[in-house]
Amino acid sequence: MKKIFLSLMTFSSLTVSAQFGAPRENPVVPSVVKDVVEDFKPATTNQGDKQYPMVNSQRMVRAQISAPKATFVGLDIDGKIYEMTKDDKGVWTGTSAPQDEGFHYYQLNIDGASVPDPGSKYFYGASRWGSGIDVPAADQDFYTLKNVPQGSVNEVYYWSSVTEKMRHGYIYLPAEYYKNPDKKYPVLYLQHGMGENETGWSAQGKTGIIMDNLIAEGKAVPFIIYMDNGLDVRRPGDPAPGQGGFGAPRPQGPRPQGAPGQGGPRPNFRRSGFGGFNAFQDILIKDIIPMVEKNYRVIADTEHRAMAGLSMGGMQTHAITLANPTTFAYVGMFSGGTFNTDELKDAADFKKTNKVLFMSAGGKETRMAEGENSVGKAASDLKAIGINAHSYVSPGTAHEWQTWRRSLYQFAQLIFK
Amino acid sequence: MKKIFLSLMTFSSLTVSAQFGAPRENPVVPSVVKDVVEDFKPATTNQGDKQYPMVNSQRMVRAQISAPKATFVGLDIDGKIYEMTKDDKGVWTGTSAPQDEGFHYYQLNIDGASVPDPGSKYFYGASRWGSGIDVPAADQDFYTLKNVPQGSVNEVYYWSSVTEKMRHGYIYLPAEYYKNPDKKYPVLYLQHGMGENETGWSAQGKTGIIMDNLIAEGKAVPFIIYMDNGLDVRRPGDPAPGQGGFGAPRPQGPRPQGAPGQGGPRPNFRRSGFGGFNAFQDILIKDIIPMVEKNYRVIADTEHRAMAGLSMGGMQTHAITLANPTTFAYVGMFSGGTFNTDELKDAADFKKTNKVLFMSAGGKETRMAEGENSVGKAASDLKAIGINAHSYVSPGTAHEWQTWRRSLYQFAQLIFK
Repeated sequence: MKKIFLSLMTFSSLTVSAQFGAPRENPVVPSVVKDVVEDFKPATTNQGDKQYPMVNSQRMVRAQISAPKATFVGLDIDGKIYEMTKDDKGVWTGTSAPQDEGFHYYQLNIDGASVPDPGSKYFYGASRWGSGIDVPAADQDFYTLKNVPQGSVNEVYYWSSVTEKMRHGYIYLPAEYYKNPDKKYPVLYLQHGMGENETGWSAQGKTGIIMDNLIAEGKAVPFIIYMDNGLDVRRPGDPAPGQGGFGAPRPQGPRPQGAPGQGGPRPNFRRSGFGGFNAFQDILIKDIIPMVEKNYRVIADTEHRAMAGLSMGGMQTHAITLANPTTFAYVGMFSGGTFNTDELKDAADFKKTNKVLFMSAGGKETRMAEGENSVGKAASDLKAIGINAHSYVSPGTAHEWQTWRRSLYQFAQLIFK
Repeated sequence: MKKIFLSLMTFSSLTVSAQFGAPRENPVVPSVVKDVVEDFKPATTNQGDKQYPMVNSQRMVRAQISAPKATFVGLDIDGKIYEMTKDDKGVWTGTSAPQDEGFHYYQLNIDGASVPDPGSKYFYGASRWGSGIDVPAADQDFYTLKNVPQGSVNEVYYWSSVTEKMRHGYIYLPAEYYKNPDKKYPVLYLQHGMGENETGWSAQGKTGIIMDNLIAEGKAVPFIIYMDNGLDVRRPGDPAPGQGGFGAPRPQGPRPQGAPGQGGPRPNFRRSGFGGFNAFQDILIKDIIPMVEKNYRVIADTEHRAMAGLSMGGMQTHAITLANPTTFAYVGMFSGGTFNTDELKDAADFKKTNKVLFMSAGGKETRMAEGENSVGKAASDLKAIGINAHSYVSPGTAHEWQTWRRSLYQFAQLIFK
């Protein structure tokens, strides 16, 4: 599992580091002006009929904002700040290099202030609500809204005996849920990554749309998905934020550089993190699962219970399903590392219970996508000891939401069948 | 109804005027520094554990942002831009005059760019997703989240035969909905105001929390609330935005100044607006009501159907309930003007059908709150012709969400009983 620590720490290349000490400024580079195809269209993630930001067929992002008195405006995306240029009316425009297919967090920098772009809708990630942009993808049909029977994503508040507070989550109910008042459904518990929250899977992840389309095509059986917050887990008596524990600032100093999984200093994630994993495990087992099984029409047994998560949520899935080996029959880790044969070969309960073990990664997450430490190698090793292991590598994507949309699309077709 | 046109046009004092032609800059005033009580606390509407913006016991708002290279940073709230001041680390801080109790839209101005404050959560209003702040109110208990049985606010997508597109709304289902699989419920159709969308009532309006608390205390009967978008109503063949019709830019020139209802030029709202009202009426009657009555357990008759709205949504309620006089038994207009005796005295179907007609206003909306044109005078006139009319004036609030939270709280206690 250690090989994905670094990926988690580099989950975002924004100039956002609330959790990691001093801010890191991304390098300023010139706006791209050469060989730009001028077929820009407003992004689908824009507010209402806002024209900017735009994306062209080369997947370049162009931002624009009026800031007549500013001396510097930059488009901060993918680890670089593209310096925008001002026209005679005080309107700044700039264009990025080509981006990967799918969803990306970004922001604007106006004279040193990192702020959301007023043109985009806002998403929670990189530990803040801020701008996001969806870059068209060749396979976007699977997460495109269609006139098929619509399930619904519902807001849930519930009392937690563990944190002694009201908590907040979302539940996806398939379209037929309301029409079959006697039918009960399996449940997938699905978790977000570091710096994200319970809104991520439905907003950036497009969970409801992906599931409605899969169910309409008969590729997935109808099931319920419950999504909660895996970071806001402080119990009475736990150290306050900044006092150590999960999400506490790490020691001062530059953040590790380099692409995910490419080496560099390794934070002591395990020691600082497992307080958080234990707290979320408590909430999931003691509060969430009983609440879901009480309030919704659920088949409340192991064979109809799954857990999956992306990045940190995959690590939580790993830890929690190992520690509760007879609770979940289906397990998914998306860009969250791998299970290995050592930890499973004597785990009799886990092996007897598990029906599918799914591990995925983005093609650009090279350590998880290729070679000795890859999800593919792990799956073949696990198959050799009798686990029904599956792996998936998302072509051409990094540690970002397009990898996880595709992972959910794959995983959902394998479970509860 | 004409007396509220001006209120609608001044629904927001932000420097936002996408719908109204040229931007209007709010005046710049100094940050408040005299007689400030230093008991500021982070606003409840902040992101995560962000410290700023803050509010003190005088209801002053203090904003803060790092913008080392900026030459001007202002806090744009309530029609003024408070000039913030920079410390030696490049961090800008500024404090507003006291604000009314309740929710306000605001934004920051950085060297001429109007942007969201990275410290706040974002809300849709004033025709954009942007910053909002909740200023504590003496009566906030009624919209405070409590450990009572929780209903849920559910996201809804449906196909519209009128616009020939997928549309998006939210439905509130009371807590007992899932526990009583044979029980059917009344429905309130509840609409937002100009510059807002289908998210307003649940986010800024706190509809779910208000209803859960009312139902738990036995003050309201359990009912369903459906909330849709009353502005995004373009049908195939309707003029595109900017080509005339509802929401089209009005002729260039300064926006009307002055407090709501205090005179000034009056835009030709009726002529430009009713295309929009007709389109929304079509969507409501042909698509929304049938969809809700098909997909949810609803008592599908007039006596169990209500419509209400705020501001423009109140005008839509007025127009649609008059044009469909046997469809809704309960009618609410919140800061949306009044019904008058002339239009109702011969409206036999409406009078026979109506069980409650509720009209409200904020105490600072003086034309609707006081005197000859007030909701109180209208209610007593309507009572005289046999209508069960009610009025309510929200103490000390303007054309803003605190008025509408309180209006919903009052109206919900009167209906379906």
